[in-house]
Amino acid sequence: MLVTVAAPPCFPPHPTLFLLTCLLWVFPAQSHAGNILVYPVDGSHWLNMDILLRELHQRGHSLTVVRSSTSWYIPEHAPHYSSVTVPVPGASSLEDPQYMAYFLKRSLEIWTRERSVLSFIELQKETINLLEEAHRSSAEMALFAMEDEQLMEKLKEANFDLMLTDPGFAGGVVLGSYLCLPIVLNVRWITNAEGHFAIAPSPLSYIPTIGSLVTDKMSFANKLKNFLHYGIALYIDYGITRPLYQGVINKFIDPNTNIYSLIQGADLWLMRVDFVFEFPRPTMPNVVYMGGFQCKPSKPLPAELEAFVQSSGEHGVVVMSLGSLLGSLLPEISEVIAAAFALLPQKVVWRHTGEKPSTLGNNTLLVNWLPQNDLLGHPKTRAFVTHGGTNGIYEAIYHGVPMLGLPLIFDQFDNMLRLRARGVAKVLEVTALKVEPMTQALTDIMDKRKPYRDNMRRMSKLHHDTPLKPMDNAIFWLEFAMRHKGAAHLRTESYKMPWYAYHNVDVLVLLLTVVVSVLLLTLMTCKVLGRALCRKKKEKLQ
Amino acid sequence: MLVTVAAPPCFPPHPTLFLLTCLLWVFPAQSHAGNILVYPVDGSHWLNMDILLRELHQRGHSLTVVRSSTSWYIPEHAPHYSSVTVPVPGASSLEDPQYMAYFLKRSLEIWTRERSVLSFIELQKETINLLEEAHRSSAEMALFAMEDEQLMEKLKEANFDLMLTDPGFAGGVVLGSYLCLPIVLNVRWITNAEGHFAIAPSPLSYIPTIGSLVTDKMSFANKLKNFLHYGIALYIDYGITRPLYQGVINKFIDPNTNIYSLIQGADLWLMRVDFVFEFPRPTMPNVVYMGGFQCKPSKPLPAELEAFVQSSGEHGVVVMSLGSLLGSLLPEISEVIAAAFALLPQKVVWRHTGEKPSTLGNNTLLVNWLPQNDLLGHPKTRAFVTHGGTNGIYEAIYHGVPMLGLPLIFDQFDNMLRLRARGVAKVLEVTALKVEPMTQALTDIMDKRKPYRDNMRRMSKLHHDTPLKPMDNAIFWLEFAMRHKGAAHLRTESYKMPWYAYHNVDVLVLLLTVVVSVLLLTLMTCKVLGRALCRKKKEKLQ
Repeated sequence: MLVTVAAPPCFPPHPTLFLLTCLLWVFPAQSHAGNILVYPVDGSHWLNMDILLRELHQRGHSLTVVRSSTSWYIPEHAPHYSSVTVPVPGASSLEDPQYMAYFLKRSLEIWTRERSVLSFIELQKETINLLEEAHRSSAEMALFAMEDEQLMEKLKEANFDLMLTDPGFAGGVVLGSYLCLPIVLNVRWITNAEGHFAIAPSPLSYIPTIGSLVTDKMSFANKLKNFLHYGIALYIDYGITRPLYQGVINKFIDPNTNIYSLIQGADLWLMRVDFVFEFPRPTMPNVVYMGGFQCKPSKPLPAELEAFVQSSGEHGVVVMSLGSLLGSLLPEISEVIAAAFALLPQKVVWRHTGEKPSTLGNNTLLVNWLPQNDLLGHPKTRAFVTHGGTNGIYEAIYHGVPMLGLPLIFDQFDNMLRLRARGVAKVLEVTALKVEPMTQALTDIMDKRKPYRDNMRRMSKLHHDTPLKPMDNAIFWLEFAMRHKGAAHLRTESYKMPWYAYHNVDVLVLLLTVVVSVLLLTLMTCKVLGRALCRKKKEKLQ
Repeated sequence: MLVTVAAPPCFPPHPTLFLLTCLLWVFPAQSHAGNILVYPVDGSHWLNMDILLRELHQRGHSLTVVRSSTSWYIPEHAPHYSSVTVPVPGASSLEDPQYMAYFLKRSLEIWTRERSVLSFIELQKETINLLEEAHRSSAEMALFAMEDEQLMEKLKEANFDLMLTDPGFAGGVVLGSYLCLPIVLNVRWITNAEGHFAIAPSPLSYIPTIGSLVTDKMSFANKLKNFLHYGIALYIDYGITRPLYQGVINKFIDPNTNIYSLIQGADLWLMRVDFVFEFPRPTMPNVVYMGGFQCKPSKPLPAELEAFVQSSGEHGVVVMSLGSLLGSLLPEISEVIAAAFALLPQKVVWRHTGEKPSTLGNNTLLVNWLPQNDLLGHPKTRAFVTHGGTNGIYEAIYHGVPMLGLPLIFDQFDNMLRLRARGVAKVLEVTALKVEPMTQALTDIMDKRKPYRDNMRRMSKLHHDTPLKPMDNAIFWLEFAMRHKGAAHLRTESYKMPWYAYHNVDVLVLLLTVVVSVLLLTLMTCKVLGRALCRKKKEKLQ
């Protein structure tokens, strides 16, 4: 195991630790080379998983990736893993980058141009459809894999040490359970909610459900909103995802269990979360935090870009990217953004496809692609305009760059809300963008007299100040699960209780019955005694 | 910060890690030398705290210990700290080793000889009295300290970075809050319960309350017992400890708060717990686990003892110690233990004071004191007979020695229960001890064909297999709290909510009202419509 110490950027790294890193690089630690079955989620989740896989490969572990025959993202052949391809009839829309770009653009159109109740309903229905289709396809892929007896024989004979999977779409959890492997999750989302909700108590009074757009300090109205979104999560779980996976579970595992229980039974949860970002909340001993595991120091920029960045002088640079999913923005939005940038004294590097906006200033460089991490780590970078995807967010935290959020879809709104609550970002609605407020927001987050910059530096310092780097932590616990065939001692089995037993409804009913009985008995005794006394008094009086 | 890697005993330490340790020893890491105010709990808790203090001192931090003028355990002068002595009228009985030895012996007498309901009640009353007296004296000491204006001036001027305290008796939490210092707890117990109960959700369906003597798998009767003991904990909190500390809190802090809330507001909880020992349960991001932080490799034994141990041959040695609190056992108990030992093929080293038992075998060596850690780490040691104090337990786990528990008082019963549940110990009632069962129990835990030995080895391996040693983890987070003036981002403030808001009673009442109203409205509408229909039908028929 390689242990490196994440020193905060303000402290110079200790010379002996530097030496250690070099030595460990020269003599890699003797660790049991593991044999890992990987069942990733396709699409953008794969990017995260692949980072973990490259590191595992570098540390000498052997990896077998289960992928579908229609995968857009997961290559069949790669130097760091071998793969098993499961033939499926077609990819789900969520895994199809072209469809997702269309869907995003359609959402923007509805929000910016149409703004009718009918179109909003259409959008919500389409989102639920997307989710349902992706879960159906995940369950089907697991079913196809498990029906292939030869493949199952091969997987059983391979003697894997564990199943590493992402439970956002839970085919991997089903296959891992069938093969009786210890399951380690690379997780932020499970089938219906944020991962913690499945295993740690989550009082809705201060734990926001995803989509509720409330912080951990809730007004009464906020709490109602949070309950509503929790209701939606319950509906997705009971109404959509459990039924979708039940077929394959009934056939190959146990009709008495369900996908939610299988996820709850995972040995370790490598959570893509850091509490500098997420609100503090109850957790469990088998949750390992690796938020920011994808981050690394920046490399020098290409010469041309470096020259542009240097030309910004003392004002520095603003970097903008709305992620790789979105093809191009609507022209009217691009015009506003370009105009807002043109008013800044900073230079701007903008990852932009589509038509060049007419309002583009001389200070703005449009690029098809940008080395995001290297730009964010550049000393001249002053602000990051982002859609709020976790990758970019953690890179900005790592390098201490305050953000302007223009969230588009899914969890991006909730992500930006967390950063705003921590005082390191401003958020604007991309579908109601105006020039003046956008320039003002950018000026604010870069203003030395305003708290954003200092808050972000503090946040970055906290993020770096951990005994183990997030990636080292993740790898340690993955290897731990291999050494000990799981992590049973860190995992409760309380989820196996029926809900009324877990919540002590049985005990409370009994205690209530006893209390009420005692009260009634006392009352009746008093009544009987009172009557007897009255009779005696009457007799005496007579 | 010094980072060393705890390699499991079965894996040879990596040569570079060994080199690192040597290098770090030669060039200690540059870390901000902190200034720490320490407010320990007297008595056996001090032993634990002192181990932490010695390590902090070694890493260059400056320590000021607040002690009472009547302290038996905490020296006024020590090379590793300076002290502030608060004059108090007298020590509480709990802090008086002589009284505690008497109390323990009296308990044994009641359990072994008297066994009458009256004497059991006397014992319970005395236990509660002990607790109450100790809390009163802790609150008074804080009051005396805070009334001393000169002392407070001096402490304020000293510019401490944090308050390190043990909240078992909570005077330190009061003083830390008054001085507005970040508070770090060295904790397993708070004023009324196990520490987690104050900050992490603790469903009573699988989290045992201390004293309940149930595991995390509870029958219905177990759950009732658990509720009963939770009731006792609530009574201690509301009936005893809150009122005792309220005087000093009213006077110096804020009449609207209480001791429980002050404890809940601590920045970091260094928990003397490891989940190889404790049942898995919900936790919080600001809880740091350091169970076993006191453990260290064994040193060679004194020559005479080594010769005795070596003379045991292949059978090995049994080590027995019932802790330093107990003066001597009752003679009738000692006779049974000696006779049971005499039947073993092993040699026995027994820490024993008082009369020499007549049944003592040739194989048993009585000693006044024994180097417990060095004996437990000796390769010839096969079993440990213990009262179940945490110090000895963690040393036995560290060295992988199965245990026979003879618990006497307080948490020792619950501690041994956890070890029995993990299959690494047997437990006997010291007050109903018989020769045959004791020999059998000892034979069982040493028997290679029985699971105890292997379970203990597995447990020990798990305990060692952490990315950071427990002590390094504790020190890292203590220094973290100094660098960042607390750990606000890891701590929820949900405890500040009123209970009905925390448990969403307000929202649930509203939702229930809405549901009932809708139902009633629907019912009434149906009724009205029904009647109207009936009338129409009748009219038609007429």
